[in-house]
Amino acid sequence: MQEFTKFPTKTGRRSLSRSISQSSTDSYSSAASYTDSSDDEVSPREKQQTNSKGSSNFCVKNIKQAEFGRREIEIAEQDMSALISLRKRAQGEKPLAGAKIVGCTHITAQTAVLIETLCALGAQCRWSACNIYSTQNEVAAALAEAGVAVFAWKGESEDDFWWCIDRCVNMDGWQANMILDDGGDLTHWVYKKYPNVFKKIRGIVEESVTGVHRLYQLSKAGKLCVPAMNVNDSVTKQKFDNLYCCRESILDGLKRTTDVMFGGKQVVVCGYGEVGKGCCAALKALGAIVYITEIDPICALQACMDGFRVVKLNEVIRQVDVVITCTGNKNVVTREHLDRMKNSCIVCNMGHSNTEIDVTSLRTPELTWERVRSQVDHVIWPDGKRVVLLAEGRLLNLSCSTVPTFVLSITATTQALALIELYNAPEGRYKQDVYLLPKKMGETSPRESRILKEIFFKITFIFFLFLSS
Amino acid sequence: MQEFTKFPTKTGRRSLSRSISQSSTDSYSSAASYTDSSDDEVSPREKQQTNSKGSSNFCVKNIKQAEFGRREIEIAEQDMSALISLRKRAQGEKPLAGAKIVGCTHITAQTAVLIETLCALGAQCRWSACNIYSTQNEVAAALAEAGVAVFAWKGESEDDFWWCIDRCVNMDGWQANMILDDGGDLTHWVYKKYPNVFKKIRGIVEESVTGVHRLYQLSKAGKLCVPAMNVNDSVTKQKFDNLYCCRESILDGLKRTTDVMFGGKQVVVCGYGEVGKGCCAALKALGAIVYITEIDPICALQACMDGFRVVKLNEVIRQVDVVITCTGNKNVVTREHLDRMKNSCIVCNMGHSNTEIDVTSLRTPELTWERVRSQVDHVIWPDGKRVVLLAEGRLLNLSCSTVPTFVLSITATTQALALIELYNAPEGRYKQDVYLLPKKMGETSPRESRILKEIFFKITFIFFLFLSS
Amino acid sequence: MQEFTKFPTKTGRRSLSRSISQSSTDSYSSAASYTDSSDDEVSPREKQQTNSKGSSNFCVKNIKQAEFGRREIEIAEQDMSALISLRKRAQGEKPLAGAKIVGCTHITAQTAVLIETLCALGAQCRWSACNIYSTQNEVAAALAEAGVAVFAWKGESEDDFWWCIDRCVNMDGWQANMILDDGGDLTHWVYKKYPNVFKKIRGIVEESVTGVHRLYQLSKAGKLCVPAMNVNDSVTKQKFDNLYCCRESILDGLKRTTDVMFGGKQVVVCGYGEVGKGCCAALKALGAIVYITEIDPICALQACMDGFRVVKLNEVIRQVDVVITCTGNKNVVTREHLDRMKNSCIVCNMGHSNTEIDVTSLRTPELTWERVRSQVDHVIWPDGKRVVLLAEGRLLNLSCSTVPTFVLSITATTQALALIELYNAPEGRYKQDVYLLPKKMGETSPRESRILKEIFFKITFIFFLFLSS
Amino acid sequence: MQEFTKFPTKTGRRSLSRSISQSSTDSYSSAASYTDSSDDEVSPREKQQTNSKGSSNFCVKNIKQAEFGRREIEIAEQDMSALISLRKRAQGEKPLAGAKIVGCTHITAQTAVLIETLCALGAQCRWSACNIYSTQNEVAAALAEAGVAVFAWKGESEDDFWWCIDRCVNMDGWQANMILDDGGDLTHWVYKKYPNVFKKIRGIVEESVTGVHRLYQLSKAGKLCVPAMNVNDSVTKQKFDNLYCCRESILDGLKRTTDVMFGGKQVVVCGYGEVGKGCCAALKALGAIVYITEIDPICALQACMDGFRVVKLNEVIRQVDVVITCTGNKNVVTREHLDRMKNSCIVCNMGHSNTEIDVTSLRTPELTWERVRSQVDHVIWPDGKRVVLLAEGRLLNLSCSTVPTFVLSITATTQALALIELYNAPEGRYKQDVYLLPKKMGETSPRESRILKEIFFKITFIFFLFLSS
Repeated sequence: MQEFTKFPTKTGRRSLSRSISQSSTDSYSSAASYTDSSDDEVSPREKQQTNSKGSSNFCVKNIKQAEFGRREIEIAEQDMSALISLRKRAQGEKPLAGAKIVGCTHITAQTAVLIETLCALGAQCRWSACNIYSTQNEVAAALAEAGVAVFAWKGESEDDFWWCIDRCVNMDGWQANMILDDGGDLTHWVYKKYPNVFKKIRGIVEESVTGVHRLYQLSKAGKLCVPAMNVNDSVTKQKFDNLYCCRESILDGLKRTTDVMFGGKQVVVCGYGEVGKGCCAALKALGAIVYITEIDPICALQACMDGFRVVKLNEVIRQVDVVITCTGNKNVVTREHLDRMKNSCIVCNMGHSNTEIDVTSLRTPELTWERVRSQVDHVIWPDGKRVVLLAEGRLLNLSCSTVPTFVLSITATTQALALIELYNAPEGRYKQDVYLLPKKMGETSPRESRILKEIFFKITFIFFLFLSS
Repeated sequence: MQEFTKFPTKTGRRSLSRSISQSSTDSYSSAASYTDSSDDEVSPREKQQTNSKGSSNFCVKNIKQAEFGRREIEIAEQDMSALISLRKRAQGEKPLAGAKIVGCTHITAQTAVLIETLCALGAQCRWSACNIYSTQNEVAAALAEAGVAVFAWKGESEDDFWWCIDRCVNMDGWQANMILDDGGDLTHWVYKKYPNVFKKIRGIVEESVTGVHRLYQLSKAGKLCVPAMNVNDSVTKQKFDNLYCCRESILDGLKRTTDVMFGGKQVVVCGYGEVGKGCCAALKALGAIVYITEIDPICALQACMDGFRVVKLNEVIRQVDVVITCTGNKNVVTREHLDRMKNSCIVCNMGHSNTEIDVTSLRTPELTWERVRSQVDHVIWPDGKRVVLLAEGRLLNLSCSTVPTFVLSITATTQALALIELYNAPEGRYKQDVYLLPKKMGETSPRESRILKEIFFKITFIFFLFLSS
Repeated sequence: MQEFTKFPTKTGRRSLSRSISQSSTDSYSSAASYTDSSDDEVSPREKQQTNSKGSSNFCVKNIKQAEFGRREIEIAEQDMSALISLRKRAQGEKPLAGAKIVGCTHITAQTAVLIETLCALGAQCRWSACNIYSTQNEVAAALAEAGVAVFAWKGESEDDFWWCIDRCVNMDGWQANMILDDGGDLTHWVYKKYPNVFKKIRGIVEESVTGVHRLYQLSKAGKLCVPAMNVNDSVTKQKFDNLYCCRESILDGLKRTTDVMFGGKQVVVCGYGEVGKGCCAALKALGAIVYITEIDPICALQACMDGFRVVKLNEVIRQVDVVITCTGNKNVVTREHLDRMKNSCIVCNMGHSNTEIDVTSLRTPELTWERVRSQVDHVIWPDGKRVVLLAEGRLLNLSCSTVPTFVLSITATTQALALIELYNAPEGRYKQDVYLLPKKMGETSPRESRILKEIFFKITFIFFLFLSS
Repeated sequence: MQEFTKFPTKTGRRSLSRSISQSSTDSYSSAASYTDSSDDEVSPREKQQTNSKGSSNFCVKNIKQAEFGRREIEIAEQDMSALISLRKRAQGEKPLAGAKIVGCTHITAQTAVLIETLCALGAQCRWSACNIYSTQNEVAAALAEAGVAVFAWKGESEDDFWWCIDRCVNMDGWQANMILDDGGDLTHWVYKKYPNVFKKIRGIVEESVTGVHRLYQLSKAGKLCVPAMNVNDSVTKQKFDNLYCCRESILDGLKRTTDVMFGGKQVVVCGYGEVGKGCCAALKALGAIVYITEIDPICALQACMDGFRVVKLNEVIRQVDVVITCTGNKNVVTREHLDRMKNSCIVCNMGHSNTEIDVTSLRTPELTWERVRSQVDHVIWPDGKRVVLLAEGRLLNLSCSTVPTFVLSITATTQALALIELYNAPEGRYKQDVYLLPKKMGETSPRESRILKEIFFKITFIFFLFLSS
């Protein structure tokens, strides 16, 4: 198992931190994390908690927050009709009866709706968090109260992180036969620690770019021993995570952090891909004057045809009120740009990584940093000029806004249907490979693809029914 | 002083509550009220606090929050360029030197920028809150720390409310010569308790509909003994408070309370005045399908020409995801409508008063109310249907979203210029009357109007410079 | 009758040309003037024509074009539902039975629908053209064939113009009792030549700015001897003629003359009043990058809030592809601006008069004019640079696009209702004054206004029914 | 050459009409065809014409129209900067020196700019029309006057069509070495009649779907004996021909034919592909209320997210004012739908073929057809209801509007660059195959694709320079 040498050992933090999926330590904030006063310093691992039915088969921050978490889940259900509809339709036939799913995802109200749907369809679930910051403690409490074996809290250490995963997988008298993963850490852990578990596993459903990448590497190396479903690249997810979702979250993220008025503001958006298109459409509609920087000529042409001025960043950097990066490249906004911005310019990142803004260049003695709100820093130049940096250059939409429940609902429904399909697939339908949901109708021809298309159709049909109702 | 019989007496709470201006007890939330843990039960009136310079000439919740409040004020300054620009321009000549201003407004970061601008221009200020809920305690603390005599905290009782106002007006060795009011309560109190103060008052600047209405009544009754400036009806304020401001706050208010995705949602907006136009433009731009109800044929025609289907509420009530009222009328959304809404329909009010949705009709035994978040109630029908009611039918934009600083900046700048004008006006320029800033260029002809137009020009010129810079 | 000295005498062309209403000689093109081959040089006045029923009580270009004109009228009827609806509703009661209406308007398919509606309601009509260029000959022929006494053709001389009007008014055994005018020339002619006719006239309905201005002058001088209705200033007309109509005609006018693609073009619009707002909204929506010049600070603020950059013309003149004027001022675009435009820049005027572009400055020897299409001139600089001048700087929407039938329908319906009201009003309801349809609901209080409001309501109600159907 | 048995023989019209490319007999109107009075009945083939230099090496309708045609070409040049820029850049090096290009395309002002650019780059050109209706006679005259051997006129018979092509190919002492084709008829003719010509041909550049299809068939059958470049599927062409172009032409086509006002109209658009997206965006922006029908769930979801109601056609057919098809399917609008439309409903087709509206079903005795304008028919039901059918169900954008010059400029530039590349390619760079310009950056890897990518980059770079200048 040579390919796993990069994976963590107990001996050292360094190797561990290299193995943990990149996304698992990204900062992540949810607007709903109301209950997280840090007054309680005791580690959940040392607490003795039981839910109202006497079970202590979980580990969460505070089981007493369950009632509040339940309300959050109920709010989420309001905008997840597709999943609720799936729950109702399939509830009679219990398509997941006998399924033992071990999961590792963000623990939020929306995931809770997914988990409870899986349970309603007959599955048993054990769950941990795929990110050490993103757990909504009250939701975890509500799940625990409802009987789900959940092991997660906000602010886990890396040791806690692997301990929680281990608690999900390693239980006497219970062996998982399905994996739902987001980032690949759970899959990795099973490969590393409990390879025999894969004998019973019918399939892996993976959502993230990182996790899918790992699966393809395994497959290439001939080490993938079960079929896996790549949910990340489904059309629905792609369109929603980028264009439609960013169209809303750019406004939400800017408003919650800065209360800025959009009307009349001059904004430069770096990059006119799907994310950039979403950001620009929203800002233009709300009365901002938007400039684009773009190096791909096709995207630049589209920006022109959509009515935006395509410029070089240097041309407008002195006059703009807001700078937004969504290129996927590094150091798009440099120290030189930052030096030339006008007072009170807002700078934030909607792109793929946290490297688009050269934040490091701002950590120099002559500049003063002032944290004015959560996720909002004023970086102050010697002459008094302030630049307003959001989320320290990390993703604005993850850090400072909520992702609309409806969008998460689409991914969650896709995950549920992928699990149902893999679990019920007759022997031989899927090989030990990574399966891609078809990107476009009619794009693929083989038999498997036909089946995947059916799943895909089911999903979109549900949305379609829902949306046009 | 017969016209004041409706005003409060010390004898009874009931008469008092009738005299207090309607807006002073409206619920009001600011996104920035981070520090309001209710752990501190001691009334500020009973506390002994001093700022770092040893002064205790103030009464706030907790002077220790000053530093946090200062940051909020600094954030606000970033988007109040017009006022900061005024501060810089007029700082040399100190046009308010000798002015003793007693003020009664919302105590927010934006007001703080106004107050500190007035001080920078030479004025002395004593300040109280015009609303018992709206004070940002940390901002009040920052003002107190900076030496402003501020008497306000969030959650005042009505007795506190009048006590604070009284502390502003009634101080040995200090007598106000200018009044800045929002709602008319301060003006009323001076009329009632300290009529002699008016001998020195050079003028009143009033911002609110309610307060302006009171002033006109006084004027009509021949009891207005100083000139007053009606800031409420200036063009800038009207356009911004309605069209442009609501265009942003409808999105912000819905997002912060419900995290709803706008794309694909069916929304009915009741009323297509300026507020409705703003709401509809924003929602349409973000991909919602918007229907309008409207009884005024001209507004209905405009809605048609702007691409909205004009319907009767009953036609669409079963299918919509969101209902928004902005008519200014009563009971636009009745119990019958609420009964017919689909599960998870969101209902909220952007209109003038809190009477547009017949909330009272929902307080019946067969319906269960569940408070799921601050300002968010699920009202649950016997069959399990939930309607999501925001802010209990009160104004969404006051209760659940922040008003953009830029908009408040416009009003604040207008107030500052009006104070400067009234304070410096030569004897006889203004009579004991209510002066209206001209609604439209060239609409008025008399001499006073020319002067007002100058003020007006100054304001708009400042904005203009700012915006086109 | 001193105020009429400015009016024409037979003796001199010069005095005549001064008296004729400004608009009557404006160039005017309709997209539907297909039949106007200039092959026929005989003046209609010298022709002997009869319609199929043997009548020769008309004077048109060519009665044989009637069938084609009938089709144009039928097309127009398709988008004039409000008028057709009025026709159907009132047909039973014949509210214009006995009315003898003499009219002077543009003779187009839309006017024909109005005239035939008036006839259907019981009126007898005699009609001439208010503009020497605007008559659609085929429509005039269709009217003549249908029995209407119409005297109009495209390309009348000024002598023809007055001759036609005279033929309408001056007929043995027939005396008008109602006047429908557009520009005031007919009214003037009756005042001057047949003052006795006014003894029988029950009222004048006037549509144009010019004509209304003349009526107010008469009224001021105490010479107005019948009630008159000012249709020009009704809200419906104002909103439609400006905002909504220009939003469409700017695109239509540019496309028909230049086939220019809007997407990606840089456009500067001078003036952000209602016309400017309409132009900008349309161009922005089609992907143009739009700049605004504006001197009124309120309008400039609106432009900012609507997402347009407010600039000085000089800042952008070198880079823009299209320049559009809608200020109402003179010489907004000067020779200096024209000198600095880039090759192939398109220049046109949507404003009030034909003076916004300093076209005169282009008539100098060093510049070559090349007429490349009807209404399209290339003005060529010595270095080969071409500026594309549309309609020689006259109104683009009158010269180069059609006014949507629906918009004309609104004015026509208003005219019809105003005629019905004046004709049926009981003695004393209207005095010898100019009556204004209320601009805004509830704006006026007197009794007459209540009645006008009823008319107004009827109109808007009809539209409302129509639009929301 | 068996695969050509389907191609025309001189013996029969029937086989001929089957072989002619479908598009060559599509009706096609250009707004600029001002000069086509049908007064001249003599066939151009029987006329003796010479240009001002004494050459008679052409065959056009009327050489005297040359001056007018020259102006049309000059207008077109104004919006074809990319091509003009190419002309200037490459003029020095004459990259087409020695090229003998035989071409068969629409003969319009825009093609003339292309042809004259090719000549400026050193080529000799002989040209015929690819469509019997689309030739702008005045442009053909201008080309002939300028010395181009052009054989084309509006209204050719099918015999004329092949005669013109033959005259281009078959000339003593001149043999083509490049082919530029649109529809494949020229290529077919050469294959059939002059197969030896291919020995000298360096390549074919083909623009149309039909022609490309034919080339792939030849390639598959191993009969393609020269390299061919598929210009049709380049990204730039696809995006522009669909989304951006239709966004403008739907407005233009409806306006020129019906003068309909868009504001407030209810429109149903069948199909939400790129064409549908363009139509909907434009109509929504101009104030229409737009409904979508769509069977592809992804497109339906996009429509929802873009704010359109997705409906079944039957749900809205009674209420809509305009029906637009852009599905690419057959009989989307059936007789049953047509029966249910309301009076004056406008029906038109923007889709791929002329089969989307079941026009045949309207040719029944009980319905009356009335041609009211060119391309506009009223179909009249027995009860008097009229449906307004545009272009008899053929493509609205080809029949009733002009394609923006800028769009055509993009295709023309691509064609020019493809010709340059094929003509100058070193031996062996291209095989006897059809080459596709890369659809997306980085999508292809082989060597040829790299070269094509370079071409592609050149094109987009030119646009980019142009657009962001």
